[in-house]
Amino acid sequence: MTASVFEHPFLAGLLGDEEMASYFTAAADIEALLAFETALAEAEAAEGIISEGAAAAIREVAGQFAPDLADLSAGTAGDGVVMPGLLRQIRPSLDPEAAKALHNGATSQDAIDASMAMRLMGVSLVLDRRLAQLGDRLAQWGIEAGDAEVMAHTRMQAARPTQFQRKLSSWADPLVRCRLRLEQIAPRAFALRFGGAVGDRAELGEQADAVADRVAASLGLFAAPGSLHTERDGIAEFGHWLSLVTGALGKLGQDVALALQSEVGELRLEGGGTSSAMAHKQNPVGAEMLVTLARFNATLVSGLHHSLVHENERSGAAWTLEWMLLPQMAMAAGAATRIAEELLGNLSLAEI
Amino acid sequence: MTASVFEHPFLAGLLGDEEMASYFTAAADIEALLAFETALAEAEAAEGIISEGAAAAIREVAGQFAPDLADLSAGTAGDGVVMPGLLRQIRPSLDPEAAKALHNGATSQDAIDASMAMRLMGVSLVLDRRLAQLGDRLAQWGIEAGDAEVMAHTRMQAARPTQFQRKLSSWADPLVRCRLRLEQIAPRAFALRFGGAVGDRAELGEQADAVADRVAASLGLFAAPGSLHTERDGIAEFGHWLSLVTGALGKLGQDVALALQSEVGELRLEGGGTSSAMAHKQNPVGAEMLVTLARFNATLVSGLHHSLVHENERSGAAWTLEWMLLPQMAMAAGAATRIAEELLGNLSLAEI
Amino acid sequence: MTASVFEHPFLAGLLGDEEMASYFTAAADIEALLAFETALAEAEAAEGIISEGAAAAIREVAGQFAPDLADLSAGTAGDGVVMPGLLRQIRPSLDPEAAKALHNGATSQDAIDASMAMRLMGVSLVLDRRLAQLGDRLAQWGIEAGDAEVMAHTRMQAARPTQFQRKLSSWADPLVRCRLRLEQIAPRAFALRFGGAVGDRAELGEQADAVADRVAASLGLFAAPGSLHTERDGIAEFGHWLSLVTGALGKLGQDVALALQSEVGELRLEGGGTSSAMAHKQNPVGAEMLVTLARFNATLVSGLHHSLVHENERSGAAWTLEWMLLPQMAMAAGAATRIAEELLGNLSLAEI
Amino acid sequence: MTASVFEHPFLAGLLGDEEMASYFTAAADIEALLAFETALAEAEAAEGIISEGAAAAIREVAGQFAPDLADLSAGTAGDGVVMPGLLRQIRPSLDPEAAKALHNGATSQDAIDASMAMRLMGVSLVLDRRLAQLGDRLAQWGIEAGDAEVMAHTRMQAARPTQFQRKLSSWADPLVRCRLRLEQIAPRAFALRFGGAVGDRAELGEQADAVADRVAASLGLFAAPGSLHTERDGIAEFGHWLSLVTGALGKLGQDVALALQSEVGELRLEGGGTSSAMAHKQNPVGAEMLVTLARFNATLVSGLHHSLVHENERSGAAWTLEWMLLPQMAMAAGAATRIAEELLGNLSLAEI
Repeated sequence: MTASVFEHPFLAGLLGDEEMASYFTAAADIEALLAFETALAEAEAAEGIISEGAAAAIREVAGQFAPDLADLSAGTAGDGVVMPGLLRQIRPSLDPEAAKALHNGATSQDAIDASMAMRLMGVSLVLDRRLAQLGDRLAQWGIEAGDAEVMAHTRMQAARPTQFQRKLSSWADPLVRCRLRLEQIAPRAFALRFGGAVGDRAELGEQADAVADRVAASLGLFAAPGSLHTERDGIAEFGHWLSLVTGALGKLGQDVALALQSEVGELRLEGGGTSSAMAHKQNPVGAEMLVTLARFNATLVSGLHHSLVHENERSGAAWTLEWMLLPQMAMAAGAATRIAEELLGNLSLAEI
Repeated sequence: MTASVFEHPFLAGLLGDEEMASYFTAAADIEALLAFETALAEAEAAEGIISEGAAAAIREVAGQFAPDLADLSAGTAGDGVVMPGLLRQIRPSLDPEAAKALHNGATSQDAIDASMAMRLMGVSLVLDRRLAQLGDRLAQWGIEAGDAEVMAHTRMQAARPTQFQRKLSSWADPLVRCRLRLEQIAPRAFALRFGGAVGDRAELGEQADAVADRVAASLGLFAAPGSLHTERDGIAEFGHWLSLVTGALGKLGQDVALALQSEVGELRLEGGGTSSAMAHKQNPVGAEMLVTLARFNATLVSGLHHSLVHENERSGAAWTLEWMLLPQMAMAAGAATRIAEELLGNLSLAEI
Repeated sequence: MTASVFEHPFLAGLLGDEEMASYFTAAADIEALLAFETALAEAEAAEGIISEGAAAAIREVAGQFAPDLADLSAGTAGDGVVMPGLLRQIRPSLDPEAAKALHNGATSQDAIDASMAMRLMGVSLVLDRRLAQLGDRLAQWGIEAGDAEVMAHTRMQAARPTQFQRKLSSWADPLVRCRLRLEQIAPRAFALRFGGAVGDRAELGEQADAVADRVAASLGLFAAPGSLHTERDGIAEFGHWLSLVTGALGKLGQDVALALQSEVGELRLEGGGTSSAMAHKQNPVGAEMLVTLARFNATLVSGLHHSLVHENERSGAAWTLEWMLLPQMAMAAGAATRIAEELLGNLSLAEI
Repeated sequence: MTASVFEHPFLAGLLGDEEMASYFTAAADIEALLAFETALAEAEAAEGIISEGAAAAIREVAGQFAPDLADLSAGTAGDGVVMPGLLRQIRPSLDPEAAKALHNGATSQDAIDASMAMRLMGVSLVLDRRLAQLGDRLAQWGIEAGDAEVMAHTRMQAARPTQFQRKLSSWADPLVRCRLRLEQIAPRAFALRFGGAVGDRAELGEQADAVADRVAASLGLFAAPGSLHTERDGIAEFGHWLSLVTGALGKLGQDVALALQSEVGELRLEGGGTSSAMAHKQNPVGAEMLVTLARFNATLVSGLHHSLVHENERSGAAWTLEWMLLPQMAMAAGAATRIAEELLGNLSLAEI
């Protein structure tokens, strides 16, 4: 099925991103869910809540687990979450004690939020690396451009010449700030959200916080004092960050498309898109896609803010909306960074 | 790749819709693109612009065409649209005259907008049928409910009893109005958008309108006086309609979730979702998903309105954004109608 | 207070619209609320529910009523709606029988929805008239332009010349369609939403529908079979229409701004904006504002779709959100039509 | 004019906030614009670019300036910005040298962005103070509640009892994080955006950065290396923060409304709203308004992300959209914090 351009047999060539997509496969999700269950079992064993043997059995079974996706799909259809079905598939391979120890004191949201956090953290590292590369490329172009000037345009009118370096900085600086922001939001966006049935960690009693800290440490997530089950601000914040990335590149794309206009010709593009009706054209496809992706994320970010209204101890409605928006926003940020890299490789300042 | 819940190996069990998805496969798109090229060739042959032989050859080749998707993906990546690559794949199977006649006087947007219109019209017929079924089911429940009363709630407070029939009507009437709206918007939403290179149909001279009318007739689309290439109001209008459908069902879902609250217990649900932590629970998953899908489309519809700002004779940026939003909104409306049907089948009025 | 540009001492010069604003004054709202109460009393008198004398007294008092706005503000702060406070102000001027007859069988939402519908209908008539004027002006320009050609641009690149008339039609045709749409949506958007305490009209028994029909007729609203209290699709539909109007003019504005670029110079603008730093500039301010207003409404329309999720028999949360969005969207459509009219008066085709 | 609920004679009683509104009056804007011009003149005098006398004259005239608002409105209508008209009003009171020194090396955006930044910084301090108060109140309630338990609800179903303190923490913690975030975003959100005609500070040559640093210091804004004219990420970031505030309080409001349901009765509300039709009701108006305000900002934040696509050296279209959204989002955050304070003062835990 291909209602999503990011997964479409030919539209993904334009708007997809294979590296980013690897974080959103069912396999990557299940692997992360099992990593959570294993980390939880080992943390509970270390705290003496379950036996070392049970934890070892869970690790072993998790390491060899092959999911029945059709059954998981049916289970998710009924339960609204994959975990009950996933646990039903795992438990038969465990001895009774380990089967009982599996997922002990946890709830579906603990595992699913952890999986999303682990994968979004991976996404953020890929994007951070790409933002660094884009910054370097823009800085390099600035050095090469030297004192070259271009016409500055304000309110869609030619104003007066300015250094092209300035324009390059105005494209690069927001990317640098996005990298700084990432350090600030990481503890909130990539926190372990662990709380048990209703978010109060009551099932694990006095050892609950110790277990949570061990799980966070072993999964590379940030430990949080509470469960954060219903506090989604860190999620909206990461979606906002993804939209700041696409927005900064959308501004770059808009400027490039304007500079490439036939009547302006300030920049030169190699390998633009061809037209099925006009052979002479060189379409600035990459520049346009950057604008498209910026407006896509600018649209979707709104839904994450609506999801902040998360009723009581768990809102199936608000929570599921996050799953419909965040992965796509990450894909859009992936595509935008990929396309920007390619676009910059094909651009040069036109000789006057 | 599975960043989209609609196409995810297990989340699609919850939020997917197979019937709806069939309109958004690459195969369905290519089939519709070829149907356009065939209809165009036959219309031009009927008008004496190309030979009957060329048209026949195009129909035959189109009927047997097997796409190289990897090559189409690469072509789309470069051109921003699939058509140049698709035509490059088709032409070698045609004799020189037919190869020249193929796509004569047309541009990529003509074919791609036609394909989208054909498939969205199919989507609308599926939804119309489902809305009729939902209306029948709600009417039937109303007959069965007779004079049964439920507590009316205003501003989240119990007000006074009212007939349950009234509540059922308030769920059904917006669905009926959506069916009436569809008749009104169809000529604008499902119009043939045919204009050639820059939307003025100049390539086909005086026969252009006759060709366009023939193509519209053979594809089952509505004929329009102009090309509508840059006039996207009919597109936004259909997206708005999809969001009215999900919004009406979201209101139903919200009401059902409120009536199913443990403390209210006005409705009874069979086969609710199970919890990985609390065996006693019956989660109103379907009702929650209706709210989620309503908010999803309420979020995305905004982007289609931004796409109305479609610069000059063709905006790659604004046009591509439509492809990123409309199919998903259709999927959401498909899922909402499917889920509502299932939910209503599991609901009953609790005995007092 | 002036957080709103539409009401700001100097920003309203740029983005305001006095004619449109007249529909959103407190005075206009109160006048419409009193018109509802008077029409209701006369309808109930005609049906023999209250006495003719009570109805006459209500009409007389309503005709002379001078509100205490500070008290209404305090009442609205507590009740969430103005009606209880407004009725508290009116009743002392009525004899006991008339005081009891006032608002008989009605609830706050009946009056407030009726006031909004009456005023939005007025807004729609103003916009319809302006759309007609804009259409005429564009048609006239088309006649004057004759065969004049301009360069067509696709994907931000010069394509080939096309008739300027075609471009004018692509600006005018969506406005014509908006006028046709208005006829289709009026019965849903401008319906009387009358239902009493919980929307079932039970307070007025068998005469309820007759009363509602009389009230609708006397207020110039459309009669509806049910109360529509919780069925907000007609409201979202009108907001969508307002955004289609601003979107169509935003496309016009975008095209004009592109054609006025110093390097393109396809159009000539008289009386553009001046710059505080560059005396030589002629900024296409009006064209830019059309884009701004299109994106403003494209953003706000999303909220009206979220308001479709209107829980139970009355949602204070969803309902109030409509009040925060619809008037502003109407103001934006008013400003856009006003600005488009001024802009077209200052534009001419540049001599080649 | 009162299309805005924040400025409406009676709706502002419900949704307004006088302290917040004081930052968005025309007077506050003009005062800040004059503060910028004065600071600029003194900075240029300190750098020897203009004479001390000219700077003193500018300070004196600015201190006594009384604007002609009607003329400013007409000027803004033509220029799209208030500055040219404002400067035209000020210069006649200055001797020729000072008149020439006024606004030397600056452009309208320098002044207008500075005024917005100064006022939004004021807004952030008010909100920070209120968030601290709300946090204290919730902490105090937690102490009073002690071990009291309430029923936890997940997916709209009763789950099992949990400590009410936990619920209070889940309301308070996001507010604490918002306060921490504010420290992180302040340097980006409240930066001086100074760049002259096209954003490169060229008019002031080698002294440009020194002048900018002096201006930032005297206005209490953060100094930035570049002009940031076209880098709007800090603006979108503050809008996002405002929506995180309203979102956190919207979640609180939703929970309170659910707990106040007649059938749940977990909380008790003093002084709820009265109904014009049902005397017995106590409507949770404040709780509903918190949800409304959350969804209002969740809707508007999208537009600020679209404004990131800010073309070339100045986009009148994207920039003006910020003026239409940010002040309202600040008003919504003001209203939400005010209402939350009042609501918490009227709530108590129902005795079991």
